[in-house]
Amino acid sequence: VKAPRVELVCIGSELLAGKVNTHAAALGIKLADIGLSIAREHTVPDNRAVMRQTFAEALRRSDVVISAGGLGPTFDDVTRDVWSEVTRRPMTEDAALVADIRRKFISRGLQMAPANLRQAQVLRGARSIPNPNGTAPGQYLLLGRKTLILLPGPARELFPMFETFVLPRLRTRHRNLHSRLKTFLIAGVPESQVDQMIRPLVDKYRRVGGCTIVHGILASHSLITVKFRVEGSGRAAVDAVARRLAGEFRTVLKAIVVGEDEERMENIVGVMLARRKETVAVAESCTGGLVSRMITDRPGSSNYFLEGAVTYTNSAKTRRLGVRPALFTRHGAVSEEVARAMATGIRRSSRATYGLSITGIAGPGGGTREKPVGLVHIACAAPGKITSKRFTLKGDRSWIRQRSSVMALDLLRQAIVRRARP
Amino acid sequence: VKAPRVELVCIGSELLAGKVNTHAAALGIKLADIGLSIAREHTVPDNRAVMRQTFAEALRRSDVVISAGGLGPTFDDVTRDVWSEVTRRPMTEDAALVADIRRKFISRGLQMAPANLRQAQVLRGARSIPNPNGTAPGQYLLLGRKTLILLPGPARELFPMFETFVLPRLRTRHRNLHSRLKTFLIAGVPESQVDQMIRPLVDKYRRVGGCTIVHGILASHSLITVKFRVEGSGRAAVDAVARRLAGEFRTVLKAIVVGEDEERMENIVGVMLARRKETVAVAESCTGGLVSRMITDRPGSSNYFLEGAVTYTNSAKTRRLGVRPALFTRHGAVSEEVARAMATGIRRSSRATYGLSITGIAGPGGGTREKPVGLVHIACAAPGKITSKRFTLKGDRSWIRQRSSVMALDLLRQAIVRRARP
Repeated sequence: VKAPRVELVCIGSELLAGKVNTHAAALGIKLADIGLSIAREHTVPDNRAVMRQTFAEALRRSDVVISAGGLGPTFDDVTRDVWSEVTRRPMTEDAALVADIRRKFISRGLQMAPANLRQAQVLRGARSIPNPNGTAPGQYLLLGRKTLILLPGPARELFPMFETFVLPRLRTRHRNLHSRLKTFLIAGVPESQVDQMIRPLVDKYRRVGGCTIVHGILASHSLITVKFRVEGSGRAAVDAVARRLAGEFRTVLKAIVVGEDEERMENIVGVMLARRKETVAVAESCTGGLVSRMITDRPGSSNYFLEGAVTYTNSAKTRRLGVRPALFTRHGAVSEEVARAMATGIRRSSRATYGLSITGIAGPGGGTREKPVGLVHIACAAPGKITSKRFTLKGDRSWIRQRSSVMALDLLRQAIVRRARP
Repeated sequence: VKAPRVELVCIGSELLAGKVNTHAAALGIKLADIGLSIAREHTVPDNRAVMRQTFAEALRRSDVVISAGGLGPTFDDVTRDVWSEVTRRPMTEDAALVADIRRKFISRGLQMAPANLRQAQVLRGARSIPNPNGTAPGQYLLLGRKTLILLPGPARELFPMFETFVLPRLRTRHRNLHSRLKTFLIAGVPESQVDQMIRPLVDKYRRVGGCTIVHGILASHSLITVKFRVEGSGRAAVDAVARRLAGEFRTVLKAIVVGEDEERMENIVGVMLARRKETVAVAESCTGGLVSRMITDRPGSSNYFLEGAVTYTNSAKTRRLGVRPALFTRHGAVSEEVARAMATGIRRSSRATYGLSITGIAGPGGGTREKPVGLVHIACAAPGKITSKRFTLKGDRSWIRQRSSVMALDLLRQAIVRRARP
């Protein structure tokens, strides 16, 4: 069985001028569930000529083409029209869709604008894809062995439509394909060193027992992800190869792996806390709520996350966390002493198992010769033991905040591990 | 003057399988500063055949090609090799780069792996672009009238290199081009209604006084952005057209615009607070620190953001904010009463001008028939006046958290406006 080629075209000038496009990353994950992967992604502006060329090339090259965006009611939404030209399929107005769109407007107490009627235009032969979260329906069109899928741009409309309508149909159409992704998360080791450790396995295992293996390695915010994907036909065969390779990788990476099949440190920590029925509270300064937000991104985090304090001012650090004012005058707000006092303070007042703290200078202002932008202190108060760490990061405000949050979460992870294996 | 066509190719399998690619959005903003825009973006996996085809097409079609990623030391970094094939330029090892890479490893107390030597390979005729934040240098190659730019993938390496080395050179090469972007941020009105309001202006102004105008409209998280870009030669002419159009848009959108040239509500609020020397403190439940993080994303936010409390548990709401336990039993933690008590509590204890609060059910668990997932209460306590709002959102956890944070910030904005014009 040969895997079908999937190509994704995202439409929207804003995606090339400030708005981040998350579709490729997120659809890639969903498609992996049914053994497919995206071969190429393109982002094009709301420009008919560029859209026409890109659509035509994608449809010529690939088996499944997904277009995302440009189905709205406004003047710059022309995806339907361009696909109609490229596929030479005329469009007709679907009466049921008109009624449905009108109903949606009424239910929100709004009047339907004439422009919204364009959203009821369907390519000849296409099935309309219901959109529970918006007015723009999608379209699903089989062209011989090829599949063309039109979806709206907003993620909250696109993803439910993709999961409910598109994914089951693609699964049925390509049912003999299987794939298994395995990831190892690594902290505290440079990428080139990890590369050296796994290189023999990567070179050795490209094809095993009729399956293809694609390897990857990726560094991000002080974490390294090693991954491989096994692709082939027959679920049992694919699973067996994946298990065998995972065993070999595990042996090689044993000393440095912090988690498997999970790329986010906050989720690794969350699983550990939930399993041990332990809790955490967070006191943050320079990261302004980022650590709390990362921890609470995970559904169910209310079982182990008690509270967060974003103490930007010194007086808030004193009032909320009991940090003694003398520490500020003696050591400064960004110091090991204050970090430790913050961790102890939030742990005590919240009665959490662990108190995690972070104080630093995220920039661009506020740095001095002794305490430059990028200086960060983190601390973790555990029962009977406080650990802390100091580091200086080079990068912009957002990167310093991101990276120091991940490092704080790793400090918490180490504290949990230490307590679990005394 | 005809604007040069810029094309961006991002390389990395991870970008098609879970890692969000922010380069197109961010580089688009930087390029706009010198009057350029990205005509197309492609994301391709670490696969030589796909890379070869995409690179060749981009170089044939466009005047400036930027490739991002695949310059690392590991087995899957093959961008240099593929560009060497496509441009038919052999590579040579640059002795100065070898010394520089070795020096960087030594300064970090690490040994240089032999694989890192590949990073010192330079295409014939290319200039090497220094990388202060990593070991992979970039490359800048003029091919007749075309410019080819190779940059590493990590944003903290790519952007400083782009700003310091690439941008000034592109500016000089295309010095007659100018462009001016104008944006209006709108809250509380549906996209199709805004579209109807501006449609006459959009249809009327496509070309004015030798300049081209590109219009756009975009909805995101309960906010709508209307924008246009004026492009042409001669800064004075471009500026004059932009000013004139801005005036007409301003007249039409007057009643619903919340800010100009700023797409983020937290920054609009930040500017207002800083100008009025007022302060804010935030108490969050379901958003878990997101509102605090958004506010503190802005440099200088320490001038008006005093503190945040992420009170996930009822006991934290009582201890930190003084919410009376009777309110939980009588109304529940997600209620107008608790939202108002949280806002009042954080305002009082922090002594901020405004206390902003948010409590809700972000899901996927925790919903009931009376209080479903997506129910959110927000409140803002200002001197002498508390306002609150209740809404039910449909979407996943992340979307509910995002959207309700923006709505809370809009409530704060309204409170500031009301106080400023009594």
